[in-house]
Amino acid sequence: MLQSKLFSKTTKEKSSETGAVSHDLLVRAGYIDQLMAGVYTFLPLGTRVMQKIENIIRDNMVNSSMQGQEIVMPSLTPKENWQTTNRWDSFDVLFKLKGAGDKDVALAPTHEEVISPLAKKVIYSYKDLPLAAFQFQTKFRNELRAKSGILRTREFLMKDLYSFHATQEDLDKYYEKAIKVYQNIFKQFGIGKITYRTLASGGSFSKYSDEFQMITDAGEDIIYVCQKCKVAINKEIKEENIKCPECGDSDFQEKKAVEVGNIFKLGTKFSEPFGLKYKDRDGSEKFVIMGCYGIGLGRALGAVVEANHDEKGIIWPKNLAPFLVHLIAIGDNKKVKATADKIYQDCKAQGIEVLYDDRQDKSVGERFAEADLLGMPLRAVVSEKTLAQNSVEVKERSKTSAKMIKIKDLIKILKNV
Amino acid sequence: MLQSKLFSKTTKEKSSETGAVSHDLLVRAGYIDQLMAGVYTFLPLGTRVMQKIENIIRDNMVNSSMQGQEIVMPSLTPKENWQTTNRWDSFDVLFKLKGAGDKDVALAPTHEEVISPLAKKVIYSYKDLPLAAFQFQTKFRNELRAKSGILRTREFLMKDLYSFHATQEDLDKYYEKAIKVYQNIFKQFGIGKITYRTLASGGSFSKYSDEFQMITDAGEDIIYVCQKCKVAINKEIKEENIKCPECGDSDFQEKKAVEVGNIFKLGTKFSEPFGLKYKDRDGSEKFVIMGCYGIGLGRALGAVVEANHDEKGIIWPKNLAPFLVHLIAIGDNKKVKATADKIYQDCKAQGIEVLYDDRQDKSVGERFAEADLLGMPLRAVVSEKTLAQNSVEVKERSKTSAKMIKIKDLIKILKNV
Repeated sequence: MLQSKLFSKTTKEKSSETGAVSHDLLVRAGYIDQLMAGVYTFLPLGTRVMQKIENIIRDNMVNSSMQGQEIVMPSLTPKENWQTTNRWDSFDVLFKLKGAGDKDVALAPTHEEVISPLAKKVIYSYKDLPLAAFQFQTKFRNELRAKSGILRTREFLMKDLYSFHATQEDLDKYYEKAIKVYQNIFKQFGIGKITYRTLASGGSFSKYSDEFQMITDAGEDIIYVCQKCKVAINKEIKEENIKCPECGDSDFQEKKAVEVGNIFKLGTKFSEPFGLKYKDRDGSEKFVIMGCYGIGLGRALGAVVEANHDEKGIIWPKNLAPFLVHLIAIGDNKKVKATADKIYQDCKAQGIEVLYDDRQDKSVGERFAEADLLGMPLRAVVSEKTLAQNSVEVKERSKTSAKMIKIKDLIKILKNV
Repeated sequence: MLQSKLFSKTTKEKSSETGAVSHDLLVRAGYIDQLMAGVYTFLPLGTRVMQKIENIIRDNMVNSSMQGQEIVMPSLTPKENWQTTNRWDSFDVLFKLKGAGDKDVALAPTHEEVISPLAKKVIYSYKDLPLAAFQFQTKFRNELRAKSGILRTREFLMKDLYSFHATQEDLDKYYEKAIKVYQNIFKQFGIGKITYRTLASGGSFSKYSDEFQMITDAGEDIIYVCQKCKVAINKEIKEENIKCPECGDSDFQEKKAVEVGNIFKLGTKFSEPFGLKYKDRDGSEKFVIMGCYGIGLGRALGAVVEANHDEKGIIWPKNLAPFLVHLIAIGDNKKVKATADKIYQDCKAQGIEVLYDDRQDKSVGERFAEADLLGMPLRAVVSEKTLAQNSVEVKERSKTSAKMIKIKDLIKILKNV
């Protein structure tokens, strides 16, 4: 991608919105643009990161013990479905509107009310179980106060998976596997070491649910990390437990954190009102046991930036960076330009993702500052000075010192990063 | 994918909704599920087709002369933006709702009102032009009567690209290239030969806009195909023209058709109200000239089914099929099962998309009927009879006769289909 043609511009103005540094950096670097409170456009750079997040999650949903099948449920949902679960009036963030024929509809803030009746058309017998379906779909939540930039928004992309089981035991086993899959996802996002499985209230159907909380000062939540087993508990659970429910130890560290994922055992909370049953081996009819498993993609993006930045800008983990390399040609020397052009073409031909700063109307200082703000893992500079050594100056965003790499070796090295 | 585990079931019941055969087939085969009038869930099979449609479109937007950059704009949009263009009251299908703080918002039925003010943050000078951004995003349209199944819905995924130009001439050139790109997309969908560029009214800023109309009896539109140059004109244009505006001939054939894409020259219709200007070479400020280019993905899916089915079911073009091969093992012979299992694993290992009918509780007749209904391009049957010849019986969905293929050759042949 040529930087001169990018459908975004950086800005030096600090965002007026107080709070999350991720919001400020992502807006200033041109990853996202705020349309109204809690509502954002993802610009090309932000869209690239979101697609990487989506692909990592999809791979983990499909090619793991979670065995998820991808579907897409709609956002417009009929009032009747929310009445069935008594959530039309009680779900405080439900966006309600009128459709054609004066029909009451809600914009789905979650999809249990869609998938439970849908599952009735798919599940008949114990032989049909277990099953799991997931989607990437926009959720709408009419939050009274959208805040912390993209950490809490009114419209956001979520991965939600729903699992269906014949027995509680089968759900329990699946749920434990899901915890491992989630931990793997956060590891791939580069936030595995600071993201804690956190016991939270389980509602009426199980003792605990699990949040995945990433430690950050921008977080709205407080968690207590058990220093022995490294499982955390949230405030609610802490008030009831002096000892860690997981290992019995009582040495906790208090941390601010942001929730990047959560999973629940729903039990029969939704299968009962919708009459979602299966016929068991003995011919008896039983309610299907359900679980649900969410990750907000924009929230994850914001959290990753909270965890990976410095005073100059974002520092993308390699897995999520919109481009691996930020290529910068310095000066108007023809050989410099020709060399940089060739490196750009070679990168593209080899599938190395490269952002090429081809702009001549900015100072070197500005361009370096922008490269730091944008945060690609590697910066590769071509100048008369580097060409004198038949080299390119390559600097990792996370380090202060650069290395001279011979031009003939560059592509091979980049391919193996 | 194991068919026994698929998150969908086929049904023999004809859909109660009259009209489009695509709706009936897609519902009966378990590709889609209707939640309410004009609102659908895409089940795993349907989601796979939609993803293929999306990938073909994306490839054509990015890797063509259209040079589109992918973004994602939100669905919640502030009233003010629609007032700026006088469309808050005049856009008849606008879903309106109240957000937090009693704020009026609309669910975007199209995104000119979002991208035009956004482009002001990106476009300053003639050097920034041309530019193009596109998205895959849900559109909401409160159609008074949603009909023809997924051909006209209230919530649908659309690809919309917006192009920005310094001059009318540049837009005109880009627009002609876009027509070629669109024709290539419909060719890749397998409907190229029956999809006509159709001149339609251009509104206030250009003489014509272009629809892409696919010939089908399920279509709501009437078009007139010039028998000489094969450009069509819509009803509105026909009433004003006795001769083909493209070639001057007057031999038209009247056809029913469905619109699968449309492109418009917007001119300064949106850049004027939003004050989207650029500074030209001579320092003067001018309004940016815009174009827009849409394809509805669900509409395309429905149209492809309208064009590719027989009395038994869907006949997917290879590019869009959820799976290339429908593998069926017949009988409870252990060697049959072991052979089919191995073929299934080999296909997966080789990246050949395969749906494996591993069900034992259905008759052979039912399973063959389902394979025809689902419509994968190839059906591969393993039975005692085929094993006696060390073979698999392979039948193309579009043909009546089958071929025996040696098991040792099968994977190689499937890889080269």
